[in-house]
Amino acid sequence: MSPDPVRIGLLGRGTVGGAFADLLAERAGAVEAATGRRPELAGTLTSAAGDFGEILERSDLVVELIGGTDPARGYVLEALRAGRPVVTANKQLLAQHGEELFGVAREAGVQLRFEAAVAGVIPIVRTIQEGFGVTEIDKVFGIVNGTTNFILSEMASTGAAYGDALARAQELGYAEADPSEDVNGADAAAKMAILARLAFHTPVSLDQVPYEGIEQVTPDDLAYAKELDLSLKLLGVAERREGGISVRVFPCFLYSGHPLAPVGGPFNAVMVEAPAITEVTMSGPGAGGIETASAVLGDVVSILAGDTPVHEAREQLPLIADVTSSFYLHLEVADEPGVLARIAQVLGENEISVKSVVQRGIGEDARLVMVVHECLESRFAAAVEEIGRLGDVRSAPRFIRVIEEEFV
Amino acid sequence: MSPDPVRIGLLGRGTVGGAFADLLAERAGAVEAATGRRPELAGTLTSAAGDFGEILERSDLVVELIGGTDPARGYVLEALRAGRPVVTANKQLLAQHGEELFGVAREAGVQLRFEAAVAGVIPIVRTIQEGFGVTEIDKVFGIVNGTTNFILSEMASTGAAYGDALARAQELGYAEADPSEDVNGADAAAKMAILARLAFHTPVSLDQVPYEGIEQVTPDDLAYAKELDLSLKLLGVAERREGGISVRVFPCFLYSGHPLAPVGGPFNAVMVEAPAITEVTMSGPGAGGIETASAVLGDVVSILAGDTPVHEAREQLPLIADVTSSFYLHLEVADEPGVLARIAQVLGENEISVKSVVQRGIGEDARLVMVVHECLESRFAAAVEEIGRLGDVRSAPRFIRVIEEEFV
Repeated sequence: MSPDPVRIGLLGRGTVGGAFADLLAERAGAVEAATGRRPELAGTLTSAAGDFGEILERSDLVVELIGGTDPARGYVLEALRAGRPVVTANKQLLAQHGEELFGVAREAGVQLRFEAAVAGVIPIVRTIQEGFGVTEIDKVFGIVNGTTNFILSEMASTGAAYGDALARAQELGYAEADPSEDVNGADAAAKMAILARLAFHTPVSLDQVPYEGIEQVTPDDLAYAKELDLSLKLLGVAERREGGISVRVFPCFLYSGHPLAPVGGPFNAVMVEAPAITEVTMSGPGAGGIETASAVLGDVVSILAGDTPVHEAREQLPLIADVTSSFYLHLEVADEPGVLARIAQVLGENEISVKSVVQRGIGEDARLVMVVHECLESRFAAAVEEIGRLGDVRSAPRFIRVIEEEFV
Repeated sequence: MSPDPVRIGLLGRGTVGGAFADLLAERAGAVEAATGRRPELAGTLTSAAGDFGEILERSDLVVELIGGTDPARGYVLEALRAGRPVVTANKQLLAQHGEELFGVAREAGVQLRFEAAVAGVIPIVRTIQEGFGVTEIDKVFGIVNGTTNFILSEMASTGAAYGDALARAQELGYAEADPSEDVNGADAAAKMAILARLAFHTPVSLDQVPYEGIEQVTPDDLAYAKELDLSLKLLGVAERREGGISVRVFPCFLYSGHPLAPVGGPFNAVMVEAPAITEVTMSGPGAGGIETASAVLGDVVSILAGDTPVHEAREQLPLIADVTSSFYLHLEVADEPGVLARIAQVLGENEISVKSVVQRGIGEDARLVMVVHECLESRFAAAVEEIGRLGDVRSAPRFIRVIEEEFV
């Protein structure tokens, strides 16, 4: 007989709530394999339907995805007091009422997890709380709002004005109809309050975090910045300073070599600095229904798994030897008419297509360097062997794999 | 009365073992605050001194930092069978005998943790096992050997030959006297066997992972690569392919926009791809005594904390308002002799020094754009106010913070 399923009470069924319900159904088997217990929805509370008391009664664990502080705060407190572990993605709730919630969770002896509240799918809460839980952290900082990062990336790359870049973000679904909480820095401030609390074990609430937004940034600023080799990000920074801590949100230039400089579009990224770890950088999508739902599910699994990571070999997948790759191919060739044609013919016969070519030198020292598109490795090896036998090729072909994807 | 301390048996006292013993002593109070139990060393086994049986008897938890498979394997198995949780940094042990160890740990009902075995301080094991534990992962790949990444970075930036770059790595302590396991890809292969096992829940052992090294890379390759906008990394790749998985290690070019392209020097970086998370990238130092010890301590804390993350506010640190920053300052000025001197004087009187200046335009449209070195923000605000009152400045000064550090 298999153990009882774990019954999950879901509060809220917007974009994230819906994605969570779908993901939970899809991954129920994997959750059971990992934790020994199969999850199932005990009930869903929406503004239109469901009774919180009844859902709580039927639930072993509560997932709060309503957002905002009211009525979410009351529901979460009641669930914790009733001894139910709670998972939430609610940054406002944590940033404004964190101490109260943590206190009640501690008293009740149940877990409150909130990975999805900060930086989407990047496991920064888990990392700071667990992996670096006893590390003397100096600084946690990064890009914790994807809307503003998209707008700044767009302005920098196209020269667009702020308003046009914002309109573009709204068009693509990276900004809401009312984007003020994002663009004025308030959203990032809530996230930094949570991260600072975790990193420094000291109470930090939203009203203690000064913030500035990006509404004042002009294309002119970004043009000068380019000359100075700088790129602009909206940064949240929490750091030890002179015996205390500083927690703030502000637009900030970074030199091009900075680990956060290449983080573009709607991505988030967070860096943690400490003497014992030097620095660790984590980046990934900052939002999105499925990504946020995935972070929520990770928390649910951690609660179910308890302190026993499962190492069971759940599958027996074969190891594949022959896969596809893109390649860099370097040939020393005779500088004669038709060389490229003969080599291209061999590639073509093997169904390998060329992405880019550089031809260099004359006479004895002519080189042909190319990148070919992804192809089965066995096919590429056969083509290279054939090319090596051509009279035009004066030494053994050299090749190295290439990841073809060109990130923009 | 405080609870009994948790007694830790330490096996091995080389660079990492020594760093761990020091870190444990330094952070014992933090561990107690986080977990409720104070750790103490129950004994240390070295090749010269100590008896394993006696140390095991006195220990609640065993930390294995000997390295290699023998005698480490026997010790770890015995500790697990005796019901002691084990933390290890031993990649060879995991890659070659993982299934046996996981099986014994499962039977004994105790934890075996090994965050430090892969990618140093980057919490990739924890992330894959816990946060993404039920995620259908498509691909885990990255730079998991710092020695080779340093050598390739050095060759690319200086044009050095492989042998010279290797010598430089040895000089700086990034390569061992016998670097063969690192440069031929075997070290990375062991790490990828472990990551593949975790990501795909399927047994993967070291002998199933084909690998290539970087010994054949020439400066000539890297020169052409630069023309093609490519940089070279030694990549470990574990991915789903055609119903199975592929796990390999090979040198590989990346286009400059790739998240792994900017990862230079001895750093490691790992990317995880899955539909539910898009992609997450994590980077940080791949090795080093203190960094590895820190990852080991994180595992010890996770075992002690069990499934109850602690949210206690352990400190009451003040929030600091006035901190130091570097700034970008943009001024519209009269194009007259002495303007720069007058502005520089105000900055100087406020003890603010200039890092770089760009002067542009003539007549009505002259601009002065500069970056100033880090200074107290209140001082900068005072200077800007004063500058704004100068007759030479034609509109309100504009400023934005800059992270001054120029990463190389």
